[in-house]
Amino acid sequence: MADSAQPAPTAASTDPQALGVMQGVPPPAERTVRVSDTTSWRFPNTRWSFSHQRELGASAAIRRGPAPVAALPYALRDDLDAVAFTTQDGHAMTWGQAVDETFTDGLVVLHRGQVVYETYRGALQAHIPHLAMSVTKSIAGLLAAILVDEGALDPAALIPAYLPELAGTAFADATLRHVMDMTTGVRYREDYVDPDAEVRFYGVAAGFSPPPKGYAGPTTIFDFLKTLKKQGEHGEAFAYKTCNTEVLGWIVQRVAGKPFAELVSERIWQKIGAEEDGYVMVDSTGFALCGAGLNVTTRDLARFGEMLRLGGRCNGRQVVPEAVVADIAAGARTEDFAKAGYVTLPGWSYRNQWWVSHNRFGAYTARGIHGQVCYVAPGAEMVVARFASHPTAANGNGPLDRISIPSYEALAEHLLRG
Amino acid sequence: MADSAQPAPTAASTDPQALGVMQGVPPPAERTVRVSDTTSWRFPNTRWSFSHQRELGASAAIRRGPAPVAALPYALRDDLDAVAFTTQDGHAMTWGQAVDETFTDGLVVLHRGQVVYETYRGALQAHIPHLAMSVTKSIAGLLAAILVDEGALDPAALIPAYLPELAGTAFADATLRHVMDMTTGVRYREDYVDPDAEVRFYGVAAGFSPPPKGYAGPTTIFDFLKTLKKQGEHGEAFAYKTCNTEVLGWIVQRVAGKPFAELVSERIWQKIGAEEDGYVMVDSTGFALCGAGLNVTTRDLARFGEMLRLGGRCNGRQVVPEAVVADIAAGARTEDFAKAGYVTLPGWSYRNQWWVSHNRFGAYTARGIHGQVCYVAPGAEMVVARFASHPTAANGNGPLDRISIPSYEALAEHLLRG
Repeated sequence: MADSAQPAPTAASTDPQALGVMQGVPPPAERTVRVSDTTSWRFPNTRWSFSHQRELGASAAIRRGPAPVAALPYALRDDLDAVAFTTQDGHAMTWGQAVDETFTDGLVVLHRGQVVYETYRGALQAHIPHLAMSVTKSIAGLLAAILVDEGALDPAALIPAYLPELAGTAFADATLRHVMDMTTGVRYREDYVDPDAEVRFYGVAAGFSPPPKGYAGPTTIFDFLKTLKKQGEHGEAFAYKTCNTEVLGWIVQRVAGKPFAELVSERIWQKIGAEEDGYVMVDSTGFALCGAGLNVTTRDLARFGEMLRLGGRCNGRQVVPEAVVADIAAGARTEDFAKAGYVTLPGWSYRNQWWVSHNRFGAYTARGIHGQVCYVAPGAEMVVARFASHPTAANGNGPLDRISIPSYEALAEHLLRG
Repeated sequence: MADSAQPAPTAASTDPQALGVMQGVPPPAERTVRVSDTTSWRFPNTRWSFSHQRELGASAAIRRGPAPVAALPYALRDDLDAVAFTTQDGHAMTWGQAVDETFTDGLVVLHRGQVVYETYRGALQAHIPHLAMSVTKSIAGLLAAILVDEGALDPAALIPAYLPELAGTAFADATLRHVMDMTTGVRYREDYVDPDAEVRFYGVAAGFSPPPKGYAGPTTIFDFLKTLKKQGEHGEAFAYKTCNTEVLGWIVQRVAGKPFAELVSERIWQKIGAEEDGYVMVDSTGFALCGAGLNVTTRDLARFGEMLRLGGRCNGRQVVPEAVVADIAAGARTEDFAKAGYVTLPGWSYRNQWWVSHNRFGAYTARGIHGQVCYVAPGAEMVVARFASHPTAANGNGPLDRISIPSYEALAEHLLRG
């Protein structure tokens, strides 16, 4: 059991089924998780709650629509678990060990469009959407880039041109490009451990954290964004701050005139042959959490990545303009990125809310805290879609990255060899 | 606009699109609806919120699964709007007028399995699930009846045999049959206007009503049910009390070992060729509101009714045992029902959480407050699936029934003639 003395939690020792998290009608009090008492965000409860977000709060459907499911051809390979690599801190490890070490809930690897690896652990199953956390940002960034490509948005425009409400805030003299590439100068501490960090109040405004006693602050994301102040200058350095994505999501929805969930459905999910409806968590006024609220199945995330790998095409149909995909893949200035000090991501950049590796596979990736990923490696014809519930929520995904970044590269290398 | 002086609200004057309810990013404050300030339950906001429940609170998916959609053949008829009838209070009216007068959001009429009438109004569209309110009860009752048919439940067993937690409560000496047919003697006032009525605290425990200031009562449905006391004797009279259904839902889930949403999906929704996933609202511990929380599309509710009309079969496959459907259709003792004093439902009875008309069409129906209905009339080969957001929440659906009950019978008569 989880309560017994153990050196460190493992995927096996924190399996939510074995622990009985939310099992029974009703579950025992000590295995019941809720948002209101923060138990839903405590590890190992997260091993259950990341696969059951909609049962914990309000959400909006991302419909797959009436189109047929795009078949995923299977060519499972039993040689992948043994693929060896060295972690960034020097340990020898195999792919199979890494899947376990990183608290994987769901994992699909596509090679040349075929499923070569698939697993579900913990509380996740193939048909269940899992919380994608900041992978959501990359979807919001993609929508924005599509609207830029269509001429509906101007990257050089100042934010108040779209959102007059943000005149007088940190975003008054920021451009859309600054927000898209997270180079704004705004006081926003993305520190999940500091109780005074702005990200905490984002959680309260968004509805996924309970308000502190006597809380009188903003209760919607809109009102929260209006409270943010400037710190430093715009356009000088990459700094990962979720508030940028919420501003971006607000702009996208206002300009397109539709809620985020409908946009994701109409523009993407209905066109990639998704198997299941996805959803996005919403705040108390029904506004999607564009920075963290997406929930989709592992297979559908893989389909999404495969569409990008094929230059924005799915079954021969252009879903996302090829120029938009190319713009993401090309990345941004690595010197801006370097200032953020991610030791696990040397030489990377950040473009349109995507993390760009500039590695030999031309890989770019959506990344979510606790181990979510949609890693697209065109040079290896590989896509990795992964959901996880790693216990650590650290900026830069340090503990995870030291394992997962080299593991993806080793797998790409292995698949490239045939 | 709704603010101008009008004699009484009409469907047209309260159209949520025209009023701008939840339109805009963000919507204006006076057009924003939330659960926390009760605005989501105020008419005319309900004309929007009944079609957007999941955006207001936690829910669990009722998956349609991978089976193909069951085609609904269309044979729309333009003669139905003119079908004339007399309301129970003596006014001449047509079917088309009744659709409007009863604040219809969605309506599908099947005759011999073909769609002869279909309309969507207000905030509802064909693909959007609508709050079914007490139609949920009939699904819970159907699941229980199936488990009785399979021998997993015994109608004569006392409730604590399944739920030891309810020893010492009103349900200690009630049988499963008493609960299924709502003939328990329990103090539970289903009065939506009385602020001290037990149904108010059901709402708080369920999470769809905000707690009163200083509230220290139950915060889960389970804990709420434990507080209920006996009043009168069991088995003597029908009395419509949602608490019976929550007890029934608890039993069904405990005995089947699965959550309500999964049971509805596996036993019914995956087998009727549903078009869209449905869902059920859940309390703060993820427990489905078996008495009121179902949300499905109008077409899928029609498919469900058609399956019952065909003796439990869909596409030649037995979904629900024929004996279970026959047991519902046969109804219960009309003298027990008469004691409840429903003047709009003379000669009716209540069986397995279904309302049984004993009319010349052998009609039985699921009924939800504000105008939800799944009306199955085997003798006329007719099914009516209807969602609505009528302003009145009155026991017995009085204002609605005086129009809708004779309207369904007139339509059945008309269709029967050819």
